[in-house]
Amino acid sequence: MANLSAFALNCSLKPSPASSSSELLLRQVLDELARHGVSGSLERLVDHNVKPGVTSDEGEGDDWPELRKRILAADIFILGAPIWIGHPSSLAQRVLERMDAFLGETDDMGRMVSYGTVAGVAIVGNEDGAHHVTAELYQGLADVGFTIPPNAVTYWVGGAMQKTDYNDLEETPVETDQATKMMVRNIIHVARLLKENPYPGDPDE
Amino acid sequence: MANLSAFALNCSLKPSPASSSSELLLRQVLDELARHGVSGSLERLVDHNVKPGVTSDEGEGDDWPELRKRILAADIFILGAPIWIGHPSSLAQRVLERMDAFLGETDDMGRMVSYGTVAGVAIVGNEDGAHHVTAELYQGLADVGFTIPPNAVTYWVGGAMQKTDYNDLEETPVETDQATKMMVRNIIHVARLLKENPYPGDPDE
Amino acid sequence: MANLSAFALNCSLKPSPASSSSELLLRQVLDELARHGVSGSLERLVDHNVKPGVTSDEGEGDDWPELRKRILAADIFILGAPIWIGHPSSLAQRVLERMDAFLGETDDMGRMVSYGTVAGVAIVGNEDGAHHVTAELYQGLADVGFTIPPNAVTYWVGGAMQKTDYNDLEETPVETDQATKMMVRNIIHVARLLKENPYPGDPDE
Amino acid sequence: MANLSAFALNCSLKPSPASSSSELLLRQVLDELARHGVSGSLERLVDHNVKPGVTSDEGEGDDWPELRKRILAADIFILGAPIWIGHPSSLAQRVLERMDAFLGETDDMGRMVSYGTVAGVAIVGNEDGAHHVTAELYQGLADVGFTIPPNAVTYWVGGAMQKTDYNDLEETPVETDQATKMMVRNIIHVARLLKENPYPGDPDE
Repeated sequence: MANLSAFALNCSLKPSPASSSSELLLRQVLDELARHGVSGSLERLVDHNVKPGVTSDEGEGDDWPELRKRILAADIFILGAPIWIGHPSSLAQRVLERMDAFLGETDDMGRMVSYGTVAGVAIVGNEDGAHHVTAELYQGLADVGFTIPPNAVTYWVGGAMQKTDYNDLEETPVETDQATKMMVRNIIHVARLLKENPYPGDPDE
Repeated sequence: MANLSAFALNCSLKPSPASSSSELLLRQVLDELARHGVSGSLERLVDHNVKPGVTSDEGEGDDWPELRKRILAADIFILGAPIWIGHPSSLAQRVLERMDAFLGETDDMGRMVSYGTVAGVAIVGNEDGAHHVTAELYQGLADVGFTIPPNAVTYWVGGAMQKTDYNDLEETPVETDQATKMMVRNIIHVARLLKENPYPGDPDE
Repeated sequence: MANLSAFALNCSLKPSPASSSSELLLRQVLDELARHGVSGSLERLVDHNVKPGVTSDEGEGDDWPELRKRILAADIFILGAPIWIGHPSSLAQRVLERMDAFLGETDDMGRMVSYGTVAGVAIVGNEDGAHHVTAELYQGLADVGFTIPPNAVTYWVGGAMQKTDYNDLEETPVETDQATKMMVRNIIHVARLLKENPYPGDPDE
Repeated sequence: MANLSAFALNCSLKPSPASSSSELLLRQVLDELARHGVSGSLERLVDHNVKPGVTSDEGEGDDWPELRKRILAADIFILGAPIWIGHPSSLAQRVLERMDAFLGETDDMGRMVSYGTVAGVAIVGNEDGAHHVTAELYQGLADVGFTIPPNAVTYWVGGAMQKTDYNDLEETPVETDQATKMMVRNIIHVARLLKENPYPGDPDE
C-alpha cells in the first residue's frame, strides 16, 4: 500500500517560539497520523514572509512558492487556524488567497494542481467560532481543488466569553481527542483511494 | 422622555410549552429592558403558522402579518435564535425571508417600514456558533432596515462538543448577564434617539 | 462497475408547480449525471410536511422519514438551495437540522448512516451569495457525514442588486454549465471509490 | 450643527499606486460624504506595515497605532474590502484582529474607545460574496464597539464566474450609486445623533 505524507500549516498570529494553541492541536493531528504510518511536517506561516496577493509567486522575498511546493507534494494537507472575532485568522485567509491561483493552474484534463490532496482543518479559539471557521475553510479549500472527507475537522473552544486557551488545558479533552482520531481515519482513507485513483478530469477541457 | 416598547421573537424549533433556552435568555433581556422602563412582549415563532415566502402576506392561514405588525410597532426588536449545525435556526432564517419584503416597502422618502426600529439578538447553543449567528442576523436585519448598536447581542454557548443547554444551568453566567445589560443600555440609547430623530430619507427617491 | 444512484432535494420556498430556479439547475445536474449512467430523482422539500426538529422522526404527519430514506439510499446527494438575504433558504437549514440526528446514528464502527454518500450543492440567487451558501452547506453536510469532492458546487447569480432569475435566462451560461460538468465528474469519481471502499470506522468506538 | 469627519481604510491586497476597485468605491463614498459637508481621508492598509497581532501596538515598526488614532478620531469609519474566495480580504480581517484590543480599552463607564464612531462598509468583487463579507464586517465592527445604521453598505459584484472588476466599468452602476447615497444619508444621521448624545455607559462597570 502506498506510503502517504502530510503537511500541516499553522496560521497562528504569533511567531515561533511563542506558544501556539493551534500548533499544539496540529501536532496532535500529526502524532495521530504517524500512528497510522503517515509521515508529516509542520510550518508556522507567520515565521515566513508570505506576501499579500493572489498569484503563486509574488516576487522577491516571497516565501509562498516554497510552502506551496510542500502543500502540493503532500497527500494530506492540514490547515490549522485560530479564531479571531469569530473568523479564521487573517493568515488563514492569506493562505486561501494565495491558493486562488490554483483555479488557473490546471493540467490538460482540467484538473487543478491540488486535486490529488485531501484536506482537513484544526481550529482553536478561547470561546466560539469553530463551526464557522470550518465552513469558511472547507468551502475555500474545496473551491481550490482539495477533497473534504466527512468530519475532517478537530477543534477546541471554551464556553461563552471565557479566556482559557487550548494550550492552558492540563489535559486533552476527550471530545477533541476523539474528533482528531475520526478526522485522521477518514482523511487517510480518502487519501489512499485518491492516490491510487486520481480524479479523471476531462480530455475536452 | 418618550416611552419605548420592545418585541421579542423566539426562533426555537420547539413549540410551547416545551422549555426553550432561547426563550429563557429573551425573558432575561425583557426583564432588563423593564428595569429601564421599557415594556415588552414575546412570541415563539413555531407556535404560529408562518408560511415560507418572501412577501408580507402569504395568504390564507399565514400568521406573519400579525407578527409583522407587532415587530414594526415596537421601538426595539429582539430576535432570539438557537444555533443548529453552527447556523441560525431555520425559523430565524424564515423571519429574515419574510422581512425581505421590507426592501420594497418604503415611504415617499425611500425609508423602509423598519427604519424606526433598533434591533438586538439573543443567541444560545450548547457549544459553538454565537458569533457566526450574530453576523448572519446583524447583516440580515441591517439589510432590511434595522439599526444595530454596538454590542447588540447577548449569548451563551458551552465548551467544544458539550451537551449542556442554557436552561440546564443553575445560575446565569456573569458574562452573559453583563452582555445582556450592555446590549440593553446601548439599544435603549439608540432607540430613544431615533424615536425623536427619524432617519431623514431622500425626497428625490 | 457498480451502478450509482442520485437523489436531489430542492429547498425552494415555492411549492410545485410554481417555477423554481433551483429546480432548473438541479435538473441540469441530474441530466449530466444521467449522461454518465447515474440514475436519479428529485423532490421539492416545500411540497412535503417536514416538521421543525432535530430527530429523524418528529411524529405524526412528518414527511422527513421518507425523504431521509431516499437520501441515505442514494450514492450521491445533491442539495439545491436558493439564496435569500445572502443565506441558504430556511428550508435548506431545515434539512441540515433534521440531519443533525445523523450524529447519533452510527454503526458499531462509529460510522454515521451518511458515510456512504457523496454530496454536492446547486445554488441560485438573483445577485449574490453563492460562495457563502456553499460554505454553510459544505460544513453542515460534512459535519453530518457526507464527503465533499473538490468543486462539488454549481451555481448561478446575477450582478449586484439585479432582479433576473436563473429560470429567466434564455440559455444556460457556459460558466454554470462547465461548473455542473466538473461537479458531476468529481462526485461520480468519489462515489464509485466509496461504494467499493467504505470508510473503515473504528472497532473501538 | 457639529462638523463631522470620516476616515476610510482600503483593505485591497495591492499596494499603491496599483489601481484598486475598492479604492474607487471608497472614493465615491467620500465624495458623497463631502457633498453633505463631511470631510474625509483615505489610506490603503497594504501601504503600511500593520503587524499581525491583537494588541493596539505590536512594537517597533508597527504602523497600526497611527491608523488606529485616525480611525478613533473620526465620527465615521468606512472599511473597504475586496472579496477573495468569497471572504473578506486577509487585510480586512487583520484590521478586525487589531481592533480586538478595543474590547479591553474602556472608560470608567465601560464604553469602548470606538463607541463614538459609526461604521459603514464598501465591498467589491468580480462575482459574488458581498452579503457574506458585509455580515462578517458588521458583526466584527459591532463587537468592537461601532454602531451600524441600516443599509450601511455599498457594493458591486458581477455575475457568476465573471472576470470584470469594478474599476473596469465604464460608468458607475445606478444600483451601486443609490446604495452609496443611502448609506451616506443613514450614517451621517446616526453620527450626528451620537456626537451630541454619547452612549451612556454604566457607572457600576
